[in-house]
Amino acid sequence: MLTILPVKGLPDIKKGDDLGKLILGKVEDQGDEFQQGDIAVVSQKIVSKAEGRILPLSKIIPSDFAKTIATETGKDPRQVEVVLRESKKIIRMRAGHLITETSHGFICANAGVDQSNVGTERDSVTLLPRDSDASADGIRKTIHHTTGKDVPVIITDTFGRAWRIGQVNFAIGISGMKPIHDYRGTKDMYRQTLQVTEIAVADELASAAELVMNKADRVPVAIVRGYRAPRGRGRVKDLIRPEEFDLFR
Amino acid sequence: MLTILPVKGLPDIKKGDDLGKLILGKVEDQGDEFQQGDIAVVSQKIVSKAEGRILPLSKIIPSDFAKTIATETGKDPRQVEVVLRESKKIIRMRAGHLITETSHGFICANAGVDQSNVGTERDSVTLLPRDSDASADGIRKTIHHTTGKDVPVIITDTFGRAWRIGQVNFAIGISGMKPIHDYRGTKDMYRQTLQVTEIAVADELASAAELVMNKADRVPVAIVRGYRAPRGRGRVKDLIRPEEFDLFR
Repeated sequence: MLTILPVKGLPDIKKGDDLGKLILGKVEDQGDEFQQGDIAVVSQKIVSKAEGRILPLSKIIPSDFAKTIATETGKDPRQVEVVLRESKKIIRMRAGHLITETSHGFICANAGVDQSNVGTERDSVTLLPRDSDASADGIRKTIHHTTGKDVPVIITDTFGRAWRIGQVNFAIGISGMKPIHDYRGTKDMYRQTLQVTEIAVADELASAAELVMNKADRVPVAIVRGYRAPRGRGRVKDLIRPEEFDLFR
Repeated sequence: MLTILPVKGLPDIKKGDDLGKLILGKVEDQGDEFQQGDIAVVSQKIVSKAEGRILPLSKIIPSDFAKTIATETGKDPRQVEVVLRESKKIIRMRAGHLITETSHGFICANAGVDQSNVGTERDSVTLLPRDSDASADGIRKTIHHTTGKDVPVIITDTFGRAWRIGQVNFAIGISGMKPIHDYRGTKDMYRQTLQVTEIAVADELASAAELVMNKADRVPVAIVRGYRAPRGRGRVKDLIRPEEFDLFR
């Protein structure tokens, strides 16, 4: 049996806030505590805020290239300028859509630059954490230091998908577990080798946690209890398909 | 709080088996019962078996086209023949990879034609259910008829993704709920309109349930308890992006 517990009531996160400590406080307020085997799933938005990855668009001067793309896609040229600064490559664009490869290697809309839930300040955007594995690592270390429990941490963000409507949450940062359950060499129940060999469990955990993270409310953290995570040192790069093996660039 | 319960100990499924009844029996064996608000998540493999969607490859005579593609992709020409019969279009192919659009509109490897966990019979493959919403509907009706509880049902299969390594479970059939939580028009906690507007919760539920469905074991069913599913009549087609709006064909 697997349980997913929302962590409620976190305050508005400001630059410099210690997310690990704030999460621990709220878990305690709920009359709970971290247990060995728990996994903490944390939404990108609060990580970006704690790391000061917020930009006021009023201070952005768009380049000519950003202006051109803004015209093509129907977007705010200042936002496009920020998206381009966060990107290595433009993957697709069309009216309303700008899909790029971020500096981390994620392929997503607007390089993860987002305007919702940024704060009362108008016209600000959040950027993805610079190194989201390190962000996850920091939270994990605080939890470990305080509780003695080694709790894997996954940072998540919302992704659109090719071919399917609607977004789901996937992992953008990992600490304390491998993101993939590797069944290669495992036999199925009829002793035949399994064809499906690598399950992206960190992405499945991200999606599962999203189910308790109501977007309109203040539930940016969830605890997954009762899942045996693949042990080992993992990083989100293990989930990114190298360009030369990707059929959909 | 959300709970995901594995349903264990289902027998080897044969053509004509009543999955709804078998699931109800095992839930009872576990000392549990369906509750209003539960969602039943069922793996495609047992649905295909119950519906007789199994083919012995020994009876398949591959066409010349299938032979050509088998050579290009390094696959069994008989399996390729079956894949082509299940497909509307070839989307990509390369050594080891054949990604097609199925008759339902899913874009996936080998049109969902799969060799693992088929049975003791060698050289058989399972095909996706012909109408997986109808499959879900049948299971839901049996549960409703027997227990009086209206339990939404999701049929799931394992999908690879563009850009990311590893597979996750997504929905291929739905009954009794809408697959998408539509936030359009909703304000975020700062009263700004949310940018991420449509969450594919049926896919997130499929991924969440996979976490208790150990591929090597006999856990093809899970119950999700404590999630408030979007009400209404849904179908899996709501999750399929029409070709004209898809940037990654």
